[in-house]
Amino acid sequence: MRIDYVKLTPVAIPDKPLLNCKGVHQPYALRTVIEIFCDDGTVGIGESYGSIKALEGLREAAPALVGLDPFHLNELKARILKALPNGGGINAKTAVADHKVTDVVYSAFEVPCLDIQGKAVGRPVVDLLGGPLRQEVPFSAYLFFKFAGHFGEDADDWGEVMSPDAMVGQARRFVSEHGFVSLKLKGGVLEPDLEIETMIKLREAFPHHPLRIDPNGGWTVETAIYIARKLEGILEYLEDPVIGMDAMAQVAAATSIPLATNMVVLEFDQIAEAVRKNAVKIVLSDHHYWGGMRASTHLAKLCETFDLGLSMHSNSHLGITLAAMTHVAAATPNLTYACDTHYPWTGVDIIEGAPFRFEDGSLTVPDKPGLGVSIDQEKLGKFAALYEVAGVSERNDTAYMQQFDPTYERRVPRW
Amino acid sequence: MRIDYVKLTPVAIPDKPLLNCKGVHQPYALRTVIEIFCDDGTVGIGESYGSIKALEGLREAAPALVGLDPFHLNELKARILKALPNGGGINAKTAVADHKVTDVVYSAFEVPCLDIQGKAVGRPVVDLLGGPLRQEVPFSAYLFFKFAGHFGEDADDWGEVMSPDAMVGQARRFVSEHGFVSLKLKGGVLEPDLEIETMIKLREAFPHHPLRIDPNGGWTVETAIYIARKLEGILEYLEDPVIGMDAMAQVAAATSIPLATNMVVLEFDQIAEAVRKNAVKIVLSDHHYWGGMRASTHLAKLCETFDLGLSMHSNSHLGITLAAMTHVAAATPNLTYACDTHYPWTGVDIIEGAPFRFEDGSLTVPDKPGLGVSIDQEKLGKFAALYEVAGVSERNDTAYMQQFDPTYERRVPRW
Repeated sequence: MRIDYVKLTPVAIPDKPLLNCKGVHQPYALRTVIEIFCDDGTVGIGESYGSIKALEGLREAAPALVGLDPFHLNELKARILKALPNGGGINAKTAVADHKVTDVVYSAFEVPCLDIQGKAVGRPVVDLLGGPLRQEVPFSAYLFFKFAGHFGEDADDWGEVMSPDAMVGQARRFVSEHGFVSLKLKGGVLEPDLEIETMIKLREAFPHHPLRIDPNGGWTVETAIYIARKLEGILEYLEDPVIGMDAMAQVAAATSIPLATNMVVLEFDQIAEAVRKNAVKIVLSDHHYWGGMRASTHLAKLCETFDLGLSMHSNSHLGITLAAMTHVAAATPNLTYACDTHYPWTGVDIIEGAPFRFEDGSLTVPDKPGLGVSIDQEKLGKFAALYEVAGVSERNDTAYMQQFDPTYERRVPRW
Repeated sequence: MRIDYVKLTPVAIPDKPLLNCKGVHQPYALRTVIEIFCDDGTVGIGESYGSIKALEGLREAAPALVGLDPFHLNELKARILKALPNGGGINAKTAVADHKVTDVVYSAFEVPCLDIQGKAVGRPVVDLLGGPLRQEVPFSAYLFFKFAGHFGEDADDWGEVMSPDAMVGQARRFVSEHGFVSLKLKGGVLEPDLEIETMIKLREAFPHHPLRIDPNGGWTVETAIYIARKLEGILEYLEDPVIGMDAMAQVAAATSIPLATNMVVLEFDQIAEAVRKNAVKIVLSDHHYWGGMRASTHLAKLCETFDLGLSMHSNSHLGITLAAMTHVAAATPNLTYACDTHYPWTGVDIIEGAPFRFEDGSLTVPDKPGLGVSIDQEKLGKFAALYEVAGVSERNDTAYMQQFDPTYERRVPRW
């Protein structure tokens, strides 16, 4: 079984005006859909970042896959490293963090290869990762402050959420529609006392739901320690309160709340320093940049070894990514926290059949061979066409925010 | 596909009177051969320790495998943990080190499950681990001081090797018969100056062969530092010169020779301390106690992450173990040293066809489905019968040494 060719389709999917410390989500989130065709007719699918740097890396490396045995993942990596010298560049501009393009590209192609392997074996991908430890994988609600609608447009059906009380309303809807148990707030948006108030009101409204806040490094060390002290006993974890390993270590030393990260530890090479400095207690895995699904299992063992907790990061994404996340999570013994997901925010998908539905905040692991999802080519075509007309090739939350507020400046930390 | 039943066959294989710091190898080395039969007729094979504690653990856990899907390795682990409460005991008395029985038992059953998976997919096991990075896996010669023959018996064809010059002769034979490049001496046997002389003479005789010595913790810190200083520039690594993490760290701080270990780091839980204390630079993997072949790939990633070298440990073993070692090694990017093996010392096997032959010190990765080896039931029966008559159920090098020398005492460190 050999790879015949690789098809890459950049897509734009409608997103909501969700705020973070660097700006606001643009009307479209970008993704790249990957299809790998084998000489025996098997097709493997995957999904990765849509930023131009990632897309260019994928395009540059794709020809190197021709003739590859899709079980030979080590050779896949060797071919990608050869096709993209010098790590392919260090900036995939995926969102909050910068990743090596080679890691992103390898990850993007590993998933369809595992999809192919699963189909060849007649097994769900989870079985290639050691089999399921749970049939239901818990996800967390991803709460965002947001504008009522996109620039120059009417309010969307989530409306404006710019206050603690409105956020409690958003959380109620997430919990009632999807049954999410853990609640995560994208912070760093409002001034610190308002975000503290938000978390306290969420705690009052949901006394038994684990709560997290993630300002994407939007706070100074001083602000982070101030906030952490106010939220002791309220948070299950505090994600990336500040920028940089040493700053994280300073905050960690000042609070009993465990610090989580997908900004200071986002590749294996950064773990040793984090351990040495006691900078983090929880690492967020993400197969899109940690080097794939297999590497995610290595990361899990590494976290167990160093007594680190493990959660899972998400960007705006479609159902192929969600399926892959679910397979990895199901096979991970020490996934100690519910996974993040942006999935409910877009409300669209390119997979055949109905989009995924969360029941009690969880997804059932797909049990069909491979990832267990397939592409609806008509839907894919629609969002590929949207990519062509959208005219964006790079996410830029700050530039979009400046349409709403021309005086807005990108400042990290902001508070 | 479900597991129908598990067959365990303890075997005794002829061994040579090889010396180490605790005594001398008995006439028979013990192994357990594992066969797992599935309801569709697929059979997976494996090999593990033969000590009574390991065998009892295997026997106790085996019924728990009935009905298991052999792809569900996470469930295999859960069932074994349940079948063997409290780690199954902490002493599998495998040789130089003590291991959790549950790790040993899980590892022993994981290999046949991967063999089954490979057969189900029609692929060599290496392909389930990411595919081969190399077709030839390098092994090292395992040099031993030895008595001429077993107690009360004539000399074997290797004769007595109790001096530096005789050891050079043994090395010459290993190199000429098997083409080994790396040469490893089991040390801690002769007085330190004689072992220093041995290594120097090996260096003179083999100027381009990497050299190692492993006294199994047989030296004091003082002796180890004395020896290390004499062997600077001669050794590729020094394995377990002393007992204990702090003692290793003391020696490590006193020499530029990297320290390797399979005695202070033999489970994931011990890595953090070793890293913190800078106690070792090289970890020896071994799928028999590190939790299987998949766990060996986790260990490799962990070593890469913490800038540790990786080599591979062996006990006296047969060809099933050798095949499994070769598959793991072929799929490990950072296997930075040739693997240990005792295989040439026994000269017998239970696999069908001719025993493995090293060419230029290397083995070609088997390319048949699964491990690529099968059991010759007649040979297995022969060594199973030998186990019954041998009357040993536990390795005891010290007791056997006392037959040669009634005044011999077990002392670690000895020098």
